[in-house]
This record gives sequence, C-alpha cells and structure tokens, in this order.
Amino acid sequence: MIPRYTRPQMAAIWEPEARFRIWFEIEAHACDAQAKLGVIPASAAKAVWERGAWEIDRIDEIEREVKHDVIAFLTNLAEHVGDEARFVHQGMTSSDVLDTCFNIQLVRAADLIIEDLDKLLVVLKRRAYEHKDTICIGRSHGIHAEPVTFGLKLAQAYAEFDRCRTRMINAREEVATCAISGAVGTFANIDPRVEEHVAEALGLKPEPVSTQVIPRDRHAMYFATLAVVASCIERLSVEVRHLQRTEVLEAEEYFSAGQKGSSAMPHKRNPILTENLTGQARLIRAFAIPAMENVALWHERDISHSSVERNIGPDATVALDFSLARLTNVMDNLVVYPENMLDNMNKLGGLPNSQRVLLALTQAGVSREDSYRLVQRNAMKVWESKGAVHLLDLLKEDETVTAKVPVAELEELFNMDYHTKHVDTIFRRVFGA
Amino acid sequence: MIPRYTRPQMAAIWEPEARFRIWFEIEAHACDAQAKLGVIPASAAKAVWERGAWEIDRIDEIEREVKHDVIAFLTNLAEHVGDEARFVHQGMTSSDVLDTCFNIQLVRAADLIIEDLDKLLVVLKRRAYEHKDTICIGRSHGIHAEPVTFGLKLAQAYAEFDRCRTRMINAREEVATCAISGAVGTFANIDPRVEEHVAEALGLKPEPVSTQVIPRDRHAMYFATLAVVASCIERLSVEVRHLQRTEVLEAEEYFSAGQKGSSAMPHKRNPILTENLTGQARLIRAFAIPAMENVALWHERDISHSSVERNIGPDATVALDFSLARLTNVMDNLVVYPENMLDNMNKLGGLPNSQRVLLALTQAGVSREDSYRLVQRNAMKVWESKGAVHLLDLLKEDETVTAKVPVAELEELFNMDYHTKHVDTIFRRVFGA
Amino acid sequence: MIPRYTRPQMAAIWEPEARFRIWFEIEAHACDAQAKLGVIPASAAKAVWERGAWEIDRIDEIEREVKHDVIAFLTNLAEHVGDEARFVHQGMTSSDVLDTCFNIQLVRAADLIIEDLDKLLVVLKRRAYEHKDTICIGRSHGIHAEPVTFGLKLAQAYAEFDRCRTRMINAREEVATCAISGAVGTFANIDPRVEEHVAEALGLKPEPVSTQVIPRDRHAMYFATLAVVASCIERLSVEVRHLQRTEVLEAEEYFSAGQKGSSAMPHKRNPILTENLTGQARLIRAFAIPAMENVALWHERDISHSSVERNIGPDATVALDFSLARLTNVMDNLVVYPENMLDNMNKLGGLPNSQRVLLALTQAGVSREDSYRLVQRNAMKVWESKGAVHLLDLLKEDETVTAKVPVAELEELFNMDYHTKHVDTIFRRVFGA
Amino acid sequence: MIPRYTRPQMAAIWEPEARFRIWFEIEAHACDAQAKLGVIPASAAKAVWERGAWEIDRIDEIEREVKHDVIAFLTNLAEHVGDEARFVHQGMTSSDVLDTCFNIQLVRAADLIIEDLDKLLVVLKRRAYEHKDTICIGRSHGIHAEPVTFGLKLAQAYAEFDRCRTRMINAREEVATCAISGAVGTFANIDPRVEEHVAEALGLKPEPVSTQVIPRDRHAMYFATLAVVASCIERLSVEVRHLQRTEVLEAEEYFSAGQKGSSAMPHKRNPILTENLTGQARLIRAFAIPAMENVALWHERDISHSSVERNIGPDATVALDFSLARLTNVMDNLVVYPENMLDNMNKLGGLPNSQRVLLALTQAGVSREDSYRLVQRNAMKVWESKGAVHLLDLLKEDETVTAKVPVAELEELFNMDYHTKHVDTIFRRVFGA
Repeated sequence: MIPRYTRPQMAAIWEPEARFRIWFEIEAHACDAQAKLGVIPASAAKAVWERGAWEIDRIDEIEREVKHDVIAFLTNLAEHVGDEARFVHQGMTSSDVLDTCFNIQLVRAADLIIEDLDKLLVVLKRRAYEHKDTICIGRSHGIHAEPVTFGLKLAQAYAEFDRCRTRMINAREEVATCAISGAVGTFANIDPRVEEHVAEALGLKPEPVSTQVIPRDRHAMYFATLAVVASCIERLSVEVRHLQRTEVLEAEEYFSAGQKGSSAMPHKRNPILTENLTGQARLIRAFAIPAMENVALWHERDISHSSVERNIGPDATVALDFSLARLTNVMDNLVVYPENMLDNMNKLGGLPNSQRVLLALTQAGVSREDSYRLVQRNAMKVWESKGAVHLLDLLKEDETVTAKVPVAELEELFNMDYHTKHVDTIFRRVFGA
Repeated sequence: MIPRYTRPQMAAIWEPEARFRIWFEIEAHACDAQAKLGVIPASAAKAVWERGAWEIDRIDEIEREVKHDVIAFLTNLAEHVGDEARFVHQGMTSSDVLDTCFNIQLVRAADLIIEDLDKLLVVLKRRAYEHKDTICIGRSHGIHAEPVTFGLKLAQAYAEFDRCRTRMINAREEVATCAISGAVGTFANIDPRVEEHVAEALGLKPEPVSTQVIPRDRHAMYFATLAVVASCIERLSVEVRHLQRTEVLEAEEYFSAGQKGSSAMPHKRNPILTENLTGQARLIRAFAIPAMENVALWHERDISHSSVERNIGPDATVALDFSLARLTNVMDNLVVYPENMLDNMNKLGGLPNSQRVLLALTQAGVSREDSYRLVQRNAMKVWESKGAVHLLDLLKEDETVTAKVPVAELEELFNMDYHTKHVDTIFRRVFGA
Repeated sequence: MIPRYTRPQMAAIWEPEARFRIWFEIEAHACDAQAKLGVIPASAAKAVWERGAWEIDRIDEIEREVKHDVIAFLTNLAEHVGDEARFVHQGMTSSDVLDTCFNIQLVRAADLIIEDLDKLLVVLKRRAYEHKDTICIGRSHGIHAEPVTFGLKLAQAYAEFDRCRTRMINAREEVATCAISGAVGTFANIDPRVEEHVAEALGLKPEPVSTQVIPRDRHAMYFATLAVVASCIERLSVEVRHLQRTEVLEAEEYFSAGQKGSSAMPHKRNPILTENLTGQARLIRAFAIPAMENVALWHERDISHSSVERNIGPDATVALDFSLARLTNVMDNLVVYPENMLDNMNKLGGLPNSQRVLLALTQAGVSREDSYRLVQRNAMKVWESKGAVHLLDLLKEDETVTAKVPVAELEELFNMDYHTKHVDTIFRRVFGA
Repeated sequence: MIPRYTRPQMAAIWEPEARFRIWFEIEAHACDAQAKLGVIPASAAKAVWERGAWEIDRIDEIEREVKHDVIAFLTNLAEHVGDEARFVHQGMTSSDVLDTCFNIQLVRAADLIIEDLDKLLVVLKRRAYEHKDTICIGRSHGIHAEPVTFGLKLAQAYAEFDRCRTRMINAREEVATCAISGAVGTFANIDPRVEEHVAEALGLKPEPVSTQVIPRDRHAMYFATLAVVASCIERLSVEVRHLQRTEVLEAEEYFSAGQKGSSAMPHKRNPILTENLTGQARLIRAFAIPAMENVALWHERDISHSSVERNIGPDATVALDFSLARLTNVMDNLVVYPENMLDNMNKLGGLPNSQRVLLALTQAGVSREDSYRLVQRNAMKVWESKGAVHLLDLLKEDETVTAKVPVAELEELFNMDYHTKHVDTIFRRVFGA
C-alpha cells in the first residue's frame, strides 16, 4: 500500500480496526447460534454483544507475549466481556475467524471494485456516444488500416470492462463463503448450524467442506480475476499513451493548470497517469502467481498462504481500486482532438481505402491475385510519396483499373461514410437498444 | 507438446488438419451467408462446399513464398474450387478466420477438459464414499491435529474440482465467440449478418465488438482458469505425495508389475505420477502470465499474441488434459492403507483429543486460560514420551482435572466416533442428498 | 512492507528521510563537480553543503501543488540554501536524481542481504560440522533411499546460499551505476565529468549510456536474483517443514516458552516460521515478473516502471532481508533429533542397503538384470513386512545370493560407515580445506 | 518447439540422438575412470567405447516395458556391448546421467546463445556507427524531448546486450557442473574421482555437493537469465515497432519483395517480426517462474522438476536462439529514414530546445521559477500552433527574455550540434577506444 496509490475506502477494509470488528462479529454471531442451540447461555451471547470491545494497542501487547493474534484478541475481548467470555470461540479454531474474515474483506473489496467498474462504464458509455461518429484511423500493427470511429474504440473498452464486471461478480461469489468448522473442519466440536447462522448473518454461504482453512482455489481464482481486470486497464492505458504521442496526438490526458510536466521541458504534457496504470497492472498481475501457489497447502492446512495474503490482500485490491478510479478520471477528462484524427487519417493519401478498391476489382471480375497486384502497384506509389499523391488520382489514371471500375464508381469507393455504416449496429450490441 | 505427456484427442484439436478444416468451415459458412444476402452467387457457396479441399504440403509450399498462412490456404483452396474461389473470403480479414478458429479450438479443448473433470469427479466421489468412514489423522502444519476421515479429504477434492468444472464452463463461455467483421472490425466490407450466420453454424456467439481481433481479455481469463485448475491438481498431487512418504504410507500410487522404480533401489515405490503432475501444474500456471500480457495489443491489433498462443494454446490444454487424466488414473487406483492410517493416528498417545478435553474443562467452569494450561501440562508429557504414555491415562491421574471432569466422562472424550459425527452432513453438502 | 515482516535497518533504506538525504548528496556532489568545472561558483556548491536542509512535511506540501516530487524537493531545498540554490540541479533531469538514488538504495539493500547471507552461512557451517556424522536417511521422492548425514543436508544448503552470495554480488554490481546525463542522456546540458564525479563520490560507476533513465535490464536482473535467493530459502524451509512432520520429527523449529501453537491443540508445535518463509518466497519470486516487464520502456523512457518499483523496491528487499534473518534464526536454533533419525532409518529393515547388495552381486559376476531381480524379491518381502523382517536376514537365507556373496561379506554390506566415507571429501569441497 | 520459430542447431541439442550420445559419453567416461581406479576391467571400458551403440526405436520399445528411460538405454546399450556391459553405470544412479546430460545441453544452448549475442552485437555496433550522427528526436513518455542520434539508441541496445552476454556467461557457468555421486549423492558406491574424471572430460566442474540431483537453484538462475535477455529483446523490438508506426516512420523492418503484408491492405508494411519477438519474450519470461518453483525439491530429490524441464529446456532456449537471430536480422536490415527523423523533430517548432533556453535564463540570473515561467509561456504558444510558429521567433519577440539573453545568443541556443557534442564520449564508453 503506497499512500499515493491508495484510496481511503479500500484502505479502510484492511485496517486493523475493520479486521477486529469483523472478528468480533463472527464471534458474536457464533455465540448467538450457540445460545440458540443451548450450547452456551443466552446471557453469554448477550454479554458479548453488549460489552464486547477491544483496543488495538492492548491486542498488540498481548500478541507480543502469546505470539498468536486470535488468542490475543480473545484475551482482550474477555477483559471487557468478563466471566462470560469463556463461552466465546467455543469449538472454533483460529482459522474459522481468520478465513471468514479474510473472505469478508475480499467480498467488500470486490464490492468496491464492482462500484469502480460501474463508474468507469458510465464514463466510457458517455464518451463512446459523444464520439460515436468521430472518425479516426484504425491501426493494426501500429500502421494505418481502415477508418473506425473513436466511439468504437470506447465501445470496445466498455464491452471489455463490462466483461470484467461479470468476472468480478463471479470472483466475489467464489470467496463469499464462511467456515466455522473447528480444528480440522469436521465440526467435531461445533454444530454445523453455527456456521450456517454466521454465514447468513454475514451475507455468506457456508463452505461445503473446509479443512480448518477455506480452500485457497477460491482465492486463486479471485486474484487471477483481479489480474485479468488489471490487464484490461493496461490495454486502455496503452491506447491512451499511443494516442498522446507527439506524432499522433489524437487524445491527451487532462493537464491541470498548476501541474509541471517536467523539470526541464516546460512544453511537455506526458501521459503519466496511464503510464502509472501500466505499471500498476504489472504489479496486480504478478500477484496472481503466489495466490495460485497458495492452493497446494499441506494436508488439512499449513500457514504458508498467510504471509502472501497479508501482502496481496490489501496490495492487489488497493491497487486495482486506485487504478480503476484513476482510469475513470482519465477517460472522463480525456481531451480528444477530432481534427488531429482527421489530419492523421489523411496523411496516407487514401491508402486506407485500398481494401475497397480491391473488392471492387474482384467483384468486377478480376481475379483475386490480379486485383491485389493492381491495387498494390498504385498504393506503393502513394506510400513512397508520403501521401503527397492520392490513391484515387492514381487509380483514375490507371487504365487497367478504370477498364473494370469506372471513375464515378472509384470516387464512391473513397466515401468515408462507407466505414461507419455499422457503427449503430455495434453500439446496439454493446450498449443494448 | 511432449509426446509422453500428450493424449491424442487433445493433440488432434491442434493439428494442422483440424485447423484447416475449421478455416474451411468458417469460409464456407461465410459464403453461405454471403450468398443468402445476395452478395455472392449461391453457386459459389455451393462450389466451395462441394469442391473445397486442401493439402497441407501445398499450403506450406505456398506459404514459404507469400509468407502468409491464410493467403496460402486460400490460394490452395482456390486451386480446388476453381474460378468461384474469388468469392471466398470477401470482405473478411485473416484474423476473422484465425481468431474464430482459435476460439473454436479453445472451446473444443474446454469440452475435453470438462469431460476430464467429469471423469475425475466420478472417481473422487466413488473413492470418497468408499472411504467415508476410514479414520485418519487430520494434519495442520504437517502436525497431527484431530481425526478426519480419508473420505473427507476426497470430498474436499471433489468440491474443489467441482468448482473447477464451473470455472471451466465460464472459461469456455468466455472464448465461445466468433468475429467476421473485416479489416478493423467495422463491418465496412461485410454485413454483420454474415458473422451471425457463421457464429450460429459453429455454435458460437458473435463478438459484440471486435477490432480485427477478438479481444484477448477473453483468452487471458481462459488461461488463468486453466492455471487455477492446475493449482488444484497440484494440491491433490501434493496430498498423495505426502501420504506415500515412507514414514506416513497411508496411500500409494498404483505400482504396475513391470515397472522399475529406480535403477539402484529395487524396494522403492515412488509417487512419480503425482510428482509429475506437480511439475505440470507449475508449467500450466506459468502460461497465464503471457496470456495476460497479450491483452494490451496496440490499437486495433498487433500480432504479438500470436507466437504466445501458438505455444500456450496447445501446450496448456494438452498438459491440463493429460494431467487431469493422469490424476483420475492415480485416484482411481490409489492404494489406500487404512491400517497404517490408524497406526499413525495412535502414535501420539491420544493427543489429538486434547481439544475435547480443553472444551470439557471450560464447560466444567474452568477458565479458558486455566483449561489450556491443564491440558498443556499433560499433553507435553505425552509428547515427550513419543506417545509411549497415553493422554487419557495421565488425565485420569491429574486430580485438578478429574475434580472438574470425572473419569468416565474423560473416557468418553477419547471416543473416536465423536469426530466423524458430521461426516454425513458434509457429504450431503458436497454430493447432494 | 508488513511491519511484522520488516526489519528496521532495511526499512530505513526506503524511508523518505533516507531518500531525500540521497537526493541531497547527489545534488550536492553534482554542484561540487560543476564548481570544479567552473560552471557554477564554488561558493554555490559550498552553500548547498552548508545550508542544505529539507523537511518532509514541507516537501509533501509543495508536491501537492506542483505534482512533481523532485521539483518539490528542490524548492524546499532552495528555501534553505537561498539565492545560490539556482545553481543546483543545473543541466540535470529528475531521473538523474531518482534513478541514481534508487540504485543507491538497491546497492545498500544488497549489502544488507549479503550480510544476511554471511550470517546464514556462518550458522549453516557451524551446524553442518556439528552434524557432519549425524546419520539420517536420504530420501528421494519422499521415500527412503540410502543413508546420508544431516551435516550433508546442511552442507548442501551452505553451498546453495554461497552461490546466492555470489549472485547477490553480481546483482549489486548490476545496479551500482550512476546517471547524471540530462534530459535524454546526451549530456547536452551537463558535462559527463559531473556524472563521473558523483559516481565516484557515491561508490558507483557511471552508466555507460543512459537515456534519461538507467536501463531497467539491470533492475530486472537484480529482482530476478532476489527471486532465486528466495527460492533457495523455500527449499531449506520445505526441508525443515518435512523434518518436523509428526511422523518424521527429525528436527524442529525452536519453540519459545511463552508461545502458543494453536488455540485448540496445546500439544502442537508447528513449523510456522518456515511455513511463513515458504509464503515469503512466493511473494519475492512473483516480483521478478513486473521487474522484467519494466525493461521495455518506450523510447528514451516512460514512467510505467515507477509504480512497480515503489512497491517492489522496498517489498522485495524487506521481505528477503527478513526471510534470511528468520531462516538464520531457525537454523541457528533448530532442534535436531539424531535418535529419531536413526529410528526412522531403521524402519525399513535394511532396505536402504539394497543398492550395495545389487552391486556386490554384479561384481560377483551376476548380470545386472539378475542381480536386480534377486535383490528385489527379498526387498519386497521386507517392504511388505513393514520392516519387521530384515533384509540381511533374508539374504542370508537366499542361497542363490549366498552362492555369490558369502554371509560375512553380506554382513559387511550393511555396515553404516560405508555411506559416510566420503563426507569429508564433500565437506572439503564445500567449506574448503 | 514450434517449427517456424525453431533453428536447427538449437533443436539438434534437444533431439533424442543428441541426448543419448551424451548419455553414452557420460557412461563411457565413467567406465574409463572406474577402469583407471581398478574398479572395473580396462577391457570393459574399451568395449563400451568400441562397441557402444543404441537405437532410438529399440530404447523406446524397452522403455514402454520397464517405464524407465535410463534403464531402457542401458539395456539397449548392453545388447551391443555384450557381457562387459555389466560394468557400465556401476555405483551410479539415473540422475547422474540425466542431470549431467541436462547441464551439458544447457551449456551447449548457452554457447549458441552467446554466439547469437555476438552476432547481434556486431550488427548493433556497425549500425550504431553508421548512424552515430543521424539526428532524431529523443522521446520521454512518447513525447518529444530533446534531440539524440539514432546511433545512440543503438549504442544503448549494444550496451544492454553486452550486459546480456556477461549474464549468459554467468548463467553458463552456473550450470556447467557434473554429478556422478550415486544414489543420494554420498559417493557411497562410487569414487568421487570418477565424477572428477567425467567432469573434466566433458568440460564441466564437479558439483561440490549433489543430493542425487544437481541443485535446481542453478537452473533457476539460468532460466531467469534467459528471461532477462528476452526482456531486452522486447525492449529493442518495441522501439522498432514504435519507429515503424505510420505517424513516426523513422525506421522499418526490411520488407522482402514477395511478402504480402495483409490479405486486405496492400499498402501495409507491418513490423510483424518485432511483434513476434515481443510475444516470444513474454513466453521466455514466463518460463522463469516454474524454473524457480523447481528449486524446492523434497529432501534429496523428487522428480517434479522433470516435466517442467522437458518443456522449458528446449522451449526457452529454442525461442531465445530464434529470437536473437531474428532480432539480428531485423537490425541488420533495418531500413532507417533519417529524413523522416528530421521531419518529425521539426514538427514541434523548436520546443525541444526549451531546456537550453531555461538554462540560459537561469545562468543570466533569472530565478529557476521565473525562467520556467518565461519559457513556458512561449512554449505553450508553439505547442498550440502545432509547430506552425517557432519558439525561437517567439523568444526573440519576448522582451523579458531578450533583456536577459540577447538575440544572437538565443539563436545559438537552437544549434543542433549542441546536443550531439558528447556522442563520441558515450560511444567510447560503450564500444571502447
């Protein structure tokens, strides 16, 4: 958690106070269930809820002695609850508390991330419609291909993050489980109904079979999903970085008045936000690997997962939350230069329309190979002129071409609307009716 | 694809013949749709289906010249179809064929993997019920904890692979899309209805918005899912390896008659199959990272993903298919030694029951801390005797204990059935009614 | 940086105070060089050294306004230095300061890690000699193979960490460079001799060619090296965890008096330290990937590496420092049970000597295949008896065997010294004369 | 190993024939040593060398029965050598052969890679000198910064790959070891001098302490090194891809006459080779992770590393060899457009010189902050004019500026040679005198 890359709401989930609050609720709900089952006195459960309290410093102090965080917490809790505290945690094992708590934290983190995605989707949709018809050149391999619209780029981003939203819902579902099953998960010392009660009270499902720990394949899937979302952030960030290049300059991150781009070159406006996001993505992606390595715990459990999760739990979710918010901000305020988009498109003297000419020739009865060669010999001249001569003009003068495709028809082939005629169809697919 | 780790059905999906067959079907279905739309003659579509053919050697030969695989294929196809071949591939781009084909291959691979999982689940369920009541010690940190049953271990594995099944269905869904959208995905040169037709004919959904390529977040999620499944394979493999250790020997991989374990030590039976699976898991897991790095292609596409996918497409699916089949075989034939399980359990002189004693003391009104100390002082003696003295015997002689928990009650605390009373509940949760 | 997994000396390297101190020194040394070259007044350099000061809070305050950390620092510095501050940072770019500083931090971190390794090596050597002749069974595949000594295991660990030491020295060398080369590394605005001066003053080498940034392949190699060291930590940790298993119990992590192993099972002593190290290794290993992804910065630089390095710089070095110290502590205090080692070895009724018998038979003229079968048929009986019958006894009764290898010779084959005769040779190789 | 991405020399290292030849040499050299020590008859060693032979098909056939590759090989070898074959492999274990062989293969692969690097370095040096003074704009964040030369970019690449060369030499050294130490590495059944003999005969060093296997930290370091080299390939590839972008077009991959760039757009020349290399880099990088996970084998060995290495051994080295050769080819034939470089540079109306103006103002006594503002207000006008107005012209008209820096001096500030004056120094650092 680097402060500058951390937002308070997500950080709060991982703070000691939040953790102990969740521990308390797990224990207190478990007491309720135990009381309902007659295992402990109802007054004990009541006492826990009423007098339950803790102090972080005191817990730390006890932990330094007993070297066990849950025992430290329970000891401190007992100092407040008094004698009835002996009914707390009965039949439970530390992992019941720790794993259920971790899952609750991950669920809450997922909820924030889904909210983040919702906000990003709103922005992407708005900007996509704003630029639905803003023509720009489509590029494959970084090379001009055929025209697209800037709105289409954003619609693609929308569709991608909409998929991420579904993935996050699945990931949330993966970890929304509760285990209160005792030492090795057999419920030997605790009734399964306690687990069911606590699960319901906390909005979770009982883990069908736990083995002291909640199985880590769930968490592996969760962190793998964060990694995929991060990779999508990288994709859109790289797009912005490309568009902001000096030679391209079709879009630019918003540049606030007081901001200095460089200590040395006052004219520079650097896409530092999306570069930052590119780096964050690398980091979030990397966390998926140790999360997967955590799956193969030994027998009913070992604790090797713990040091990993203490890091990647907060680090991955905080970084992803921050990244989504930053990306939303970037896209919300992205300065778009439609005029530059047109300028760039026109640099190639009509070459992006060569595909249409190729088709027209084929449909006029020229073989595929011959058509290809006819287009190519003119296109290469345009290319070598750096766009100074226009493909249409050359084609008009190429009698082998005009013998098959008359001039008027050639001119029609260079009409830009041709490329955008299905934009509405695509928007309908992506955004619905 | 290492031959010894490859099964023919999965390998077949990735062979040139299968690939060209899919390419052909995509092109031929597209011709049908184009003919239906009146873009090309119906006779052309018919000719493609009727005369369509290709030879791998010839394609290779053409590709060496034109350095483009799809053009090579189309050229060879044209040699068979004849003049009407000029209507093939109209308005399409190579990626339409390549990406849709890759997705079909991934879908078929997913289908095989789901079948593999189904077979594994059948085996795990059978063996779980077989050993539902086979008592063995549960271990946390590799240290004896409390009793479980071997069936519970297998039920946990079943639940884990059942989750993997759901994940694979999601992963399959992720990549079951078709793109026939032309040069930069705008449908400028091809009607979106062609895509819809081809998609339906091939059991896919149209990609809502493609940009020449099908977006790679789908594939990232797919390979991330394979990686999680592999991690689950690793978990169960590591369990088997642990159980087969000389000192533990609670289970053993089936050892065929002719097999030699080692050139030097004839007595050795090594868990080489599960060790192999542990390695395979490392490999499959690693493939998730480049798949995620593939997401951020430049603009509408670049081709950096291709060399990655040519490797991990076959390598990850072949390895996972092989691994699941091998794991199924291992679990199907696993030799289980219930007697050794009991022997191991009894090594600790009843220590695994200490938790029960702790609870009994607490319930008899002793404070949590005092109970802990009472149990601990007896348990340590057992521990130091290496199980030669039994905890029950010591407790009976500890008057502070018997003052609170009478001898008869103490004896009941060491009844093994206590630990298995909820096995049926857990089995019901995992396997249904 | 999780506090509980952080040691103060390493943390100090990464604290703002240390960073600003390094920034200051870079700037001040650069002023010295500039003054020597006559570019700025000598009095200015003097003023910087004498009056140079900064306050973290003030820097933060300025940074919030200018959104640029180096400018914020320089502004604050100027508040102290006064008018002569205008000579500071002349011809330099922020990256000159940031990258040189980061390298200094990595060098210092490497120095601490090398110290850690030295301490670990001392402990491993001491314990290796202590247990040079402590016989224990060697295991391949977790199965008993032939005898080794516990000292040999430690000698292997020593050799491995000694290689790590060399690797860390190489890694340190990789990043021990300094760049003061201006905006795009051309020295257009600053004399290369400034870089040379600063490099020498700070114990670094000038970066031969920088491009605003110091090339990140250096850092990739550095973090990859940390990852390999972490993997070695994992290996030794896994060894300890295996040895501490209930059924094996040949060694145990030191268990302090006040420590509670589990809230539920007072008899348990869990290898939680080495489990923790196993997890830490996963984390440190993962950091290598984003470090490698950082190499391909765009053109002369982009800043995507920065968010990665702000995390992995401290996180990887802090975790590795902590892990090495913890491992040293574990190995220093490891409780070794030679008696249990012998007990374990004897469980197999002499099977580990089967290889010797095999050789003896071969040397007595029996074909390799026949020897193998002769040994195997006796060994299998021992195996099935769970060590109740002894291989030597069976062999003595096997006339086909004794016809080739007389009884007296057979008995000699089971002499344990046979296996340890080259321990001294190996120790000499590892530890020197 | 994808055939299209595989070069024969590297592939040959990994073919069965090469492997069995190495196995044979290890066994035969070991026989020599054993004969010298009097352990086996000299005639036996001679027989092995003279009659030693094998057939891959026959080995496969035997392996199908015995399920052990080394035994299969030895059995087949014995069929040729005859009775004296019983002296082969005495006291050795399969891993002695397998691990030593794998190391030899890795050493040979490293040798090829070092050769590849040498060739790449030759090309980079030649092209660097060719373009030592070819001015182009330096870019940070993809934004024009200050001028560099194209030769400097190549010098940086040279320095980077020169470091890779050193790293590969270290990596080769890491794995250039030989183990002939028997079942668990104790030399119980074989004299250490056999290992020394074989090591020397094969150009290796004896592994100081092996434990049946050669420790895998060596291989982890090896594959981590390949991953770093791959990341450097990615960097240069990304640079080429950027330079070939339509809007930039400062350089281009060589485009052979017969090659078709796209089935649809005949004008396109795509940087597909460097895109391919970008993908290859992702793959090679990923292999480092399982190589590191292979380090923590259980106790003296398990075989989980094997399935990983069967894949990554060939796959990583073949891909890296191919990538280096392809990159060499790309750089050797790279079409460079110095004129476009100048055109691009001039797009910004002199803004890249703003840093010089800033310095000049500071040196003329203007405060750093005021200088910054003076330059910024003029620079922003140039920026907004898209380079239509020139910074120099604006500055000449800005009286606050000319009051401090006279016009003649301003003009000098825009002299391009200023930026290249230290190119020779840098070249000297990189390429030597």
